[in-house]
Amino acid sequence: MAENTSWKAEIIAVGTELLMGEVINSNAAYLSQELAAIGIDVFYHTSVGDNPQRIKGLFQQAFRRSNLILVTGGLGPTDDDLTVSTLAELLDTPLAEDEGSVEKIKAFFITRDMPMSSTNLKQALRPVDGEPILNRMGTAPGLYWDITHKVGAEREVEGPCLLLAFPGVPREMKAMWTEEALPRILAQQPDKRILVTRFLKFTGIGESLLGEKLRDLMAQSSPTVSPYVGQAEVKIRIAAKAETREAAYQLITPTETEILSRVGQYCFGKDEETLEEVVANLLRAKKLQLAVAESCTGGLVSSRLTDISGSSDYTFLNMVTYSNAAKTSQLGVPEATLATHGAVSEAVAKAMAEGILEKSQADVGLSITGIAGPTGGTDAKPVGLVYIGLAQAGKETLAKKVLVNPRYDRKYIKYWFSQYALHYLRLWLLGLLDADKH
Amino acid sequence: MAENTSWKAEIIAVGTELLMGEVINSNAAYLSQELAAIGIDVFYHTSVGDNPQRIKGLFQQAFRRSNLILVTGGLGPTDDDLTVSTLAELLDTPLAEDEGSVEKIKAFFITRDMPMSSTNLKQALRPVDGEPILNRMGTAPGLYWDITHKVGAEREVEGPCLLLAFPGVPREMKAMWTEEALPRILAQQPDKRILVTRFLKFTGIGESLLGEKLRDLMAQSSPTVSPYVGQAEVKIRIAAKAETREAAYQLITPTETEILSRVGQYCFGKDEETLEEVVANLLRAKKLQLAVAESCTGGLVSSRLTDISGSSDYTFLNMVTYSNAAKTSQLGVPEATLATHGAVSEAVAKAMAEGILEKSQADVGLSITGIAGPTGGTDAKPVGLVYIGLAQAGKETLAKKVLVNPRYDRKYIKYWFSQYALHYLRLWLLGLLDADKH
Repeated sequence: MAENTSWKAEIIAVGTELLMGEVINSNAAYLSQELAAIGIDVFYHTSVGDNPQRIKGLFQQAFRRSNLILVTGGLGPTDDDLTVSTLAELLDTPLAEDEGSVEKIKAFFITRDMPMSSTNLKQALRPVDGEPILNRMGTAPGLYWDITHKVGAEREVEGPCLLLAFPGVPREMKAMWTEEALPRILAQQPDKRILVTRFLKFTGIGESLLGEKLRDLMAQSSPTVSPYVGQAEVKIRIAAKAETREAAYQLITPTETEILSRVGQYCFGKDEETLEEVVANLLRAKKLQLAVAESCTGGLVSSRLTDISGSSDYTFLNMVTYSNAAKTSQLGVPEATLATHGAVSEAVAKAMAEGILEKSQADVGLSITGIAGPTGGTDAKPVGLVYIGLAQAGKETLAKKVLVNPRYDRKYIKYWFSQYALHYLRLWLLGLLDADKH
Repeated sequence: MAENTSWKAEIIAVGTELLMGEVINSNAAYLSQELAAIGIDVFYHTSVGDNPQRIKGLFQQAFRRSNLILVTGGLGPTDDDLTVSTLAELLDTPLAEDEGSVEKIKAFFITRDMPMSSTNLKQALRPVDGEPILNRMGTAPGLYWDITHKVGAEREVEGPCLLLAFPGVPREMKAMWTEEALPRILAQQPDKRILVTRFLKFTGIGESLLGEKLRDLMAQSSPTVSPYVGQAEVKIRIAAKAETREAAYQLITPTETEILSRVGQYCFGKDEETLEEVVANLLRAKKLQLAVAESCTGGLVSSRLTDISGSSDYTFLNMVTYSNAAKTSQLGVPEATLATHGAVSEAVAKAMAEGILEKSQADVGLSITGIAGPTGGTDAKPVGLVYIGLAQAGKETLAKKVLVNPRYDRKYIKYWFSQYALHYLRLWLLGLLDADKH
């Protein structure tokens, strides 16, 4: 089915609390993902306050340009809940009390032994030719309304105009979407193709260099290839539309293979995988126990590695040796080494990795020593400088030096340090980081 | 100054990833809060994809109806970053390379020892009569552009038209907003009334109980009082608008005092203060050194305490004794105690706190042992159970038992555990948690 026969959709959120910044509009992202998954393109998200004039203006614009209009919010019982009354006025349609909704609203309050306010029954009003969407979790029913023959001829799109309205409470909206709205839309929409996405996740390479190496792929249209900057990592998204999930993966796979052949050494995982999870799985697969000695990261690397359920498989003792004295007394870092090279140095990183390895009797020792700032930096050793040490029986101990943007705040610099520590640990476990190779 | 002379603002987010639901538009909420705080009303949030036609249509609409247009996203180095080029075309203004931005982009890559791509310099292009907004944290400068004399006469609003563009990365956008954009806007905007907010932050009390105790205050209109649920904490927001900051605080202070008189014992801090910061300040004020022994939290408590700059004042050695063997060998927890009571017990929490105190020679020992799940729980010791131990010379060692909602995910349970550890440490340091008082 050709691209241009698929529906154009937009999502409108109604509520002054959104424009005050008191609520983040997560509904739009949820509904967009849902629509993307069934091949419907979303062209706009808009949020508007509880103001009849502005709500009307937005709806009129939506009638002209969209086949599917999803509205969240403005269905509550109070006077500033305007979605249904405004729509009815705009489309010159009388409102009627929906008997089924009246019963459900009354039952809702009885079940919970709560007093009902008379305004609650306002929620049972809907346009005479609209259909209610059942709300199992709250009192506001939704609205499913085919307004194709009401929106006039002067439109920018061909095809139908369907309007669906949901409460703004995410839990209620999601249940109503899944159980009631999605099946009706699936039955009606013309494009039966589905969208499949694959994320490849990278560390140790910046967004622009990655973009340069993949420029030709990013110009192609099926599958599409696009970069996303994450928390101390970059993601490449590969997406394709096809009749079936299998057919979509057949479109994605050659591009994925090509990307990995070019920049695979920087790719640590796919889709929802985290770096700590990938490292944890490597440790488990190789039946290795890890011990971590941290200075500047203060326990963050250890904490990330224990975010994984079952981390006792590879963790039994980690240390935060923040002071020089602790590095010496706990890890046996020689005072002379500290005095000669300073705590943030290749020599100390190596001594810490070897020290925690010996103390813990683990299989692999990892150390981190650096300057997280904002104070403590010098010209020779600026904020953002970190050394990552790695030690293992039978291998030459190694320390990698990294410079992180000193303008980041302390917390984010710590996170970057932890990211590099896990990045190099991953390469080490894969045998890609032996001393003689670098 | 009357309300109707104040500026009308709107916020536009550019990026197909928003319409795919892959990114939630938290920038709009942040900027809305910021604008609300200086008395500027926001009338629309809109998100649009990387499509020149639709971006143009939105901008034209914004020129007609808004005095202040804030744009996030679309400033990156790749071909689908369209914000600046589209604006320049629409307003018939040539682009020029900004020398300062070129230097900053080059320096950014040199500092980090990363290869620069030629497309990075695209980010230095801006309309000849626009001004750059410095981006300390990334390569994309923002744009501050007074377009009042370019947008034509047929507008729905009176007054100026200012356009500001920011990168979509929240961290970069927020720093640019605070440091560069906000001061310029404050100097220009007509409504000089300002909104002042005060946040009081609570742990150890739930939102509903807090709401019950403050119900009458939450019904008042100036200042307004409203609850926000945060990350393992509850915030109460007190807000008032007045001509001056001082006048607003005069409205706020009596309500703040009243709230503290009712539930002050649960309030750990104000506004941006974090619990770790409050604890750090207490340790510094009392010149105490702390040592932490963690089991289930895996280093998270230690990491949070070292998020504070200058944490070497109170930190020199923390340990993650994840296994029973490590608890025994490193902290001297008797094997018999572990066998009799189990690792998650009051006895072991106390022994860990005393063990780390002795080993480190610190002034205060803090320990955490619990079950973060999702596996490892039993009927007697369910997921979500944690013991917090506290030891100090001259005081009786103490352990507090807490049950956290077992339905939270492992990472959030760890965070709750760390929050309770810091909560009880704070009470301990204040002398409110001695064994004989509980």
